Amino acid sequence: MAAAAEGPPPPSPAAIPETTVPEITPPRHPLFARIRLATIFDVPHLHKLIHQMATFERLTHLFTATEASLAATLFPNPPPRPFTSFTVFILEVSPSPFPPTPQTDPNFSPILKTFHLDLPVEDTEKEVFRSGIGGDVVVTGFVLFFPNYSSFLAKPGFYIEDLFVREPYRKKGFGRMLFTAVAAQAAKMGYGRVEWVVLDWNVNAIQFYEQMGAEILPDWRVCRLTGEALQSFAHLNI
Amino acid sequence: MAAAAEGPPPPSPAAIPETTVPEITPPRHPLFARIRLATIFDVPHLHKLIHQMATFERLTHLFTATEASLAATLFPNPPPRPFTSFTVFILEVSPSPFPPTPQTDPNFSPILKTFHLDLPVEDTEKEVFRSGIGGDVVVTGFVLFFPNYSSFLAKPGFYIEDLFVREPYRKKGFGRMLFTAVAAQAAKMGYGRVEWVVLDWNVNAIQFYEQMGAEILPDWRVCRLTGEALQSFAHLNI
Repeated sequence: MAAAAEGPPPPSPAAIPETTVPEITPPRHPLFARIRLATIFDVPHLHKLIHQMATFERLTHLFTATEASLAATLFPNPPPRPFTSFTVFILEVSPSPFPPTPQTDPNFSPILKTFHLDLPVEDTEKEVFRSGIGGDVVVTGFVLFFPNYSSFLAKPGFYIEDLFVREPYRKKGFGRMLFTAVAAQAAKMGYGRVEWVVLDWNVNAIQFYEQMGAEILPDWRVCRLTGEALQSFAHLNI
Repeated sequence: MAAAAEGPPPPSPAAIPETTVPEITPPRHPLFARIRLATIFDVPHLHKLIHQMATFERLTHLFTATEASLAATLFPNPPPRPFTSFTVFILEVSPSPFPPTPQTDPNFSPILKTFHLDLPVEDTEKEVFRSGIGGDVVVTGFVLFFPNYSSFLAKPGFYIEDLFVREPYRKKGFGRMLFTAVAAQAAKMGYGRVEWVVLDWNVNAIQFYEQMGAEILPDWRVCRLTGEALQSFAHLNI
């Protein structure tokens, strides 16, 4: 499902007037974030993240993915070039700076950003989402996207299928970082559009997307053929 | 844009009671139809079809495609395997049966169907859309689709970007034939979903899709980042 699990970005911290007594300035907690291309080794974490997203969207009855089926469909061998098929960015955070990140693909350099938080994040699932790269690095979110096409523009674009940030890390700018990574990649490639869907009652998400420059198209409806209704076409006499 | 230019299928012709005087039985006009994979040689026709679709949807202000840009983006060299990227089916009709169709790709056999129409089709653009394969074969429509992905199912699917039938050929079952070809391909490949969008005021199309077994999802809205708003991300400091 879609990019529904991220609220609007936090308001900018108000500038602190010089007359303020220093002691009441809230302490700032740096948190180092990195976006990189997912690999097959991320599948166990990805499976848990997708399940959390299904829970958030109250759609667990539609969730049938397994680690094996995710690995087979998202990370086929040989892997397609990034951005030409289903592509996943993984978001990780660390309390200390990341060591220099090896660039595993010539088409994409990992994105680094330092967040300064008012309070440390209380992450009760830190062990479950501890990154395979070691240290105190924790997986906190992902975005799954793939090419789409506009025939009017005669240009490819990207469709964002999922954008998810784990609950303790929401409303801090991580969703914006993931979204921006996809939009920046599309813009750099000369693509025409980035599209996704949002639930019409998710006013926080809609406001966030509009702030990012997106239009919400009011009069298009999503149509879906799935399950038995789709399978019935397999042996249909056209 | 989307599959908006096809109305509901025609009602089945009523069975003619045996007591009916034979002379008033309307004459039947056979029309032979074929769906095949598009090639780069179809680009001039495809460009005209997409422009007609933009006109139908009153969206010509969004239309900037050229034959060159369509060729470069839809038919790169080397071509990807069909169904792994942007894929176009072309619909052609002929007043006489098609000669045996060479199967240009091991993954797809052209689909043949004979229509029996009450009246011959008056096609004033026959010359413009005459097929390159010669004879009286005329290009009448197309469907453009590409893989999408459901993380809940951990399965690929297809997204139908465009489904279009030229005006003189509408409401005769050609749109159904094109739609069925995509759904059948998805079902054969074990895919999880076929999705597309429809304008909410296009009640004929919605009724048609529901008859085909599709759900229309009422509470999702399409979001789009395009033009200047997208370009502004190219040099953004994430």
